[in-house]
Amino acid sequence: MANISYESNPLSQSRQLILSRMLSQLDRLGPDDPMPVVIGGRQVGEALRIGVTGPLGAGKSSIINELAVRFRKRDLTVGIIAVDPSSPFTGGALLGDRVRMADLAGDEGVFVRSIATRGSTGGLAVTAVDAADILDQSGFDRVIIETVGVGQVETDIVGACDITVVVLEPGSGDMIQSMKAGLMEIADLFLVNKMDLRGSQRYLSDLEGALELKSYKVRPGVIPTLARNGDGMDEFCNWIEQRFASSKEDGTLLTRRTDQRIDRTRRVAEQLLLKRFWEMTPPARVQEVSDRSNEIRKAAQKLVRGVLGK
Amino acid sequence: MANISYESNPLSQSRQLILSRMLSQLDRLGPDDPMPVVIGGRQVGEALRIGVTGPLGAGKSSIINELAVRFRKRDLTVGIIAVDPSSPFTGGALLGDRVRMADLAGDEGVFVRSIATRGSTGGLAVTAVDAADILDQSGFDRVIIETVGVGQVETDIVGACDITVVVLEPGSGDMIQSMKAGLMEIADLFLVNKMDLRGSQRYLSDLEGALELKSYKVRPGVIPTLARNGDGMDEFCNWIEQRFASSKEDGTLLTRRTDQRIDRTRRVAEQLLLKRFWEMTPPARVQEVSDRSNEIRKAAQKLVRGVLGK
Repeated sequence: MANISYESNPLSQSRQLILSRMLSQLDRLGPDDPMPVVIGGRQVGEALRIGVTGPLGAGKSSIINELAVRFRKRDLTVGIIAVDPSSPFTGGALLGDRVRMADLAGDEGVFVRSIATRGSTGGLAVTAVDAADILDQSGFDRVIIETVGVGQVETDIVGACDITVVVLEPGSGDMIQSMKAGLMEIADLFLVNKMDLRGSQRYLSDLEGALELKSYKVRPGVIPTLARNGDGMDEFCNWIEQRFASSKEDGTLLTRRTDQRIDRTRRVAEQLLLKRFWEMTPPARVQEVSDRSNEIRKAAQKLVRGVLGK
Repeated sequence: MANISYESNPLSQSRQLILSRMLSQLDRLGPDDPMPVVIGGRQVGEALRIGVTGPLGAGKSSIINELAVRFRKRDLTVGIIAVDPSSPFTGGALLGDRVRMADLAGDEGVFVRSIATRGSTGGLAVTAVDAADILDQSGFDRVIIETVGVGQVETDIVGACDITVVVLEPGSGDMIQSMKAGLMEIADLFLVNKMDLRGSQRYLSDLEGALELKSYKVRPGVIPTLARNGDGMDEFCNWIEQRFASSKEDGTLLTRRTDQRIDRTRRVAEQLLLKRFWEMTPPARVQEVSDRSNEIRKAAQKLVRGVLGK
């Protein structure tokens, strides 16, 4: 990394610290708190947002590392948000920021941050996109959101990006899991990683076959990779940049962002509504209604009527 | 299975067909529709509900099969609900009922049913528990709910049972995944399956070590199994029956069910509230508000105020 110039104004260590504190605030931000403002920041919408998902062990971290290195070679700064579901058992993220991105250590043009769940899964999706906004405002050129796993929340998060990348591993049974989670619908690009594994060619053609069956407006790309050796990584980076350029050109980027903005408004409104509802409905009331009704649905209807008046 | 008597009144094929239709209705049931009633059914609460979860490939199906066979040997009827996340891509469950439970085919004391997601993950948890209620009312002595994967929804569903069983596979990295999803907190019993795999003894002691670190009210049980050969399966069945008896005796079953009932009331109330909210807030209004505000949160607040009046 020694030969990279920093023309694209990477953040100093002290700015990175401030940014880090802002993102910590997001974790505690309720749906009616105002968003923290990046002083002297840019308007949201300049950065390209890339969502990367796939099962644990498919090699997402290596792939993101390789992509970030390539962005840096093009003088593009990179913000990375790793969404890392955790549980009260560990009290925090299992994969800490420290163990990641060793290749990029000390490069001030790269910022990495983990976000962990805290119970509410709906809240996680909102927080992840808020965090992307803040990195965008802070001037990062490329924002990568990584999620582990192929559940609904992960799908929602990466689906809220400009480009959605799904990483698969040959022979791992993840293709079926991905199909189940609806990832086949939202992927713009599949990376079939670990192409040195036995059966990987077969896996690749199975995937192509599965995509044939589906009617896409724009057929998703498929790139075979071996991130560990850097194989396919230049192609990956080029694909991303070309798609960014063409989607700006033909207006599909704008349409996608407008639709996502509406989705996001709906999601935040739901969060806020539920918050208000539970503020207006104390636990004692829930217990009382639940004890008195022999039918759960009737009890629930009573609670809702108490707030909406019907 | 030829030597099993049917003293516990299993359902005839025609009754099974009716039951099957009732469960199909649940899929389309909104939060304000009344629950379908099982004519001549029993009050809810007689059946023991066992939630079984764990990652794909850990052997849950074999384990449930073996457990069901043992219940049948004790003249207990068994209802099985397999929660099977699917996507619009496939249009239905990937693992059909037909491929399951070959050992129990033709046994009228066993009823198996898959439930698939249809977008709403909150709705899935409600539907799964409603389905368990209907099997309970229909007279099944033991109801098993199986979920695949270790996400939040799966955790919610199996956590809503009387006994929660987590199936793990040595060396698969699923222990960390399970910890992340909060399964360590809610498991009453761990089965470490495929004990013929290399490193399984080590895995078993790692798990015991991880459980030592945690302060449980009641420490979860751990049983090593090899379901394929039936190893550990009698012990598993005995553990379940003993826990059922002791939790009835000491009142913990009743406390747990009361807490779960309150949780469920809350969940259904949230579903209903959101439904009402979107009935009162047409898409055009969302688009208008989203277009006019430069801040998502302000747009969302406007929408909520439109319904709650504040």
